[in-house]
Amino acid sequence: MRWMTFKVGGVESFGYVINDQVIDVAGNGHDSLKAAIAADALTILGEVAGPRHALSAVEYCPVITQPNKILCAGLNYHAHREETGRGDGDAKPTIFCRFAAAQMGHEQPMLRPLESNNLDFEGEIALIIGKPGRRISQADALSHVAGYSIYNDGSVRDWQRFTSQFTPGKNFAATGGFGPWMMTPDEVGDPYQMQLTTRLNGEVMQDASSALMIFNFQELIEFCSTWIELEAGDVIVTGTPGGVGAARKPPVFMDAGDLIEIEVQPIGVLSNKVDVG
Amino acid sequence: MRWMTFKVGGVESFGYVINDQVIDVAGNGHDSLKAAIAADALTILGEVAGPRHALSAVEYCPVITQPNKILCAGLNYHAHREETGRGDGDAKPTIFCRFAAAQMGHEQPMLRPLESNNLDFEGEIALIIGKPGRRISQADALSHVAGYSIYNDGSVRDWQRFTSQFTPGKNFAATGGFGPWMMTPDEVGDPYQMQLTTRLNGEVMQDASSALMIFNFQELIEFCSTWIELEAGDVIVTGTPGGVGAARKPPVFMDAGDLIEIEVQPIGVLSNKVDVG
Repeated sequence: MRWMTFKVGGVESFGYVINDQVIDVAGNGHDSLKAAIAADALTILGEVAGPRHALSAVEYCPVITQPNKILCAGLNYHAHREETGRGDGDAKPTIFCRFAAAQMGHEQPMLRPLESNNLDFEGEIALIIGKPGRRISQADALSHVAGYSIYNDGSVRDWQRFTSQFTPGKNFAATGGFGPWMMTPDEVGDPYQMQLTTRLNGEVMQDASSALMIFNFQELIEFCSTWIELEAGDVIVTGTPGGVGAARKPPVFMDAGDLIEIEVQPIGVLSNKVDVG
Repeated sequence: MRWMTFKVGGVESFGYVINDQVIDVAGNGHDSLKAAIAADALTILGEVAGPRHALSAVEYCPVITQPNKILCAGLNYHAHREETGRGDGDAKPTIFCRFAAAQMGHEQPMLRPLESNNLDFEGEIALIIGKPGRRISQADALSHVAGYSIYNDGSVRDWQRFTSQFTPGKNFAATGGFGPWMMTPDEVGDPYQMQLTTRLNGEVMQDASSALMIFNFQELIEFCSTWIELEAGDVIVTGTPGGVGAARKPPVFMDAGDLIEIEVQPIGVLSNKVDVG
């Protein structure tokens, strides 16, 4: 199934997608997709026959609007390590953080901030934690995944590089696209056969399989849960393939009017137009 | 005034401190200190005559149990930059992140994880955001502060250094002490005349004035709010002075039975015993 968070008439709700409609399941004891995941209620809610809205009539929100954690893997595809000049040196995953306030939903504006001309895309696969846990083994890891989604780990490169820590450049408001929905693992099938393609104004910029990750989904879950409890609704953004704008010669940065689309098969397409703000 | 979050009989509540008691103000329309700050309700709640509990009878929680953001300044005192060998090079603050799940309250165990013998202390002053805002000027910055508190930015040094990003070593469960309370700005007085002293088993390890910060409170608020909206209850942990354990020769790391105390005058003392887990 595909689960999403959306607004109708300015009111936030959530539901599951069938064809070109979303079935609204709010008002059944859970006030958000995160809360429903935490209650392990998706199977029951997936049988609720709530109000139907055309997808074309709703405003998409980030799949999880207020995750307790957004843990981002950096430098997790060889081609991206090479283009950034960082080689293959690290024996452990590189993990940085995003905050909920930096996210936006599918079809919402992605903002190139007033302070920079260095807005870049990073197409990534995100996983959403279902069952919480600490010190999760790789063997158990996939049983903790509630679903997979698409993330644009939008990066303001100059602000990312002011110091050793990436935080500022990874947390400008409305730079983190997350959507349009999450797909449950049964529908995804083999998570290492997903194909990610990023298009800027229709031109392919990134194209890679999830099989190429240096640290795969299970290794990322094991690593992160070693130090902190993973909670329902936590998001792990699993790293970008080669082809980012900053590494191109000359560099390609985005500005108002650009259209950035990230397709992950079989999940769907996350699409955002760039604006300035 | 001093405001704190605590548990009595396993139930979380919050209130203000008078002498050796806390006045419980839960049940007056706000279910957490964060919510009360967001509603700008502290002045009114500070006149509520709720149930009184002896401080010795409550379990201290992190001052804000679920901040939307915990933004940590790294390398923000010259003596600490020097001891880490990082010089004075950065023109902007170094910002990394902690998550709520890595926090613990005053007098709760600080955990040296099973995975490391490199648990270190970092005594710091924390500020809690009251009025939200984006692109806040230095001139306005202090009007966005709801209060000041004490933070032990406990660091697992080997896990902090696996890669360029500090996240894992800064986010082991129960390594981030936060408390015992926050003090409102009117009672703190000049925020640049606070004195921070860290004691390990009674021995002074850090001793510095808030006047010595490289980027002061106002500059940190201005910088962080440039990229992201600061929300009520957000925490900015403002950096550690020189004297951390890892930089000593030989290095000093903590283990079960150690007592780590961080005193910030005029706020109080944050005290945690180390355990393993």
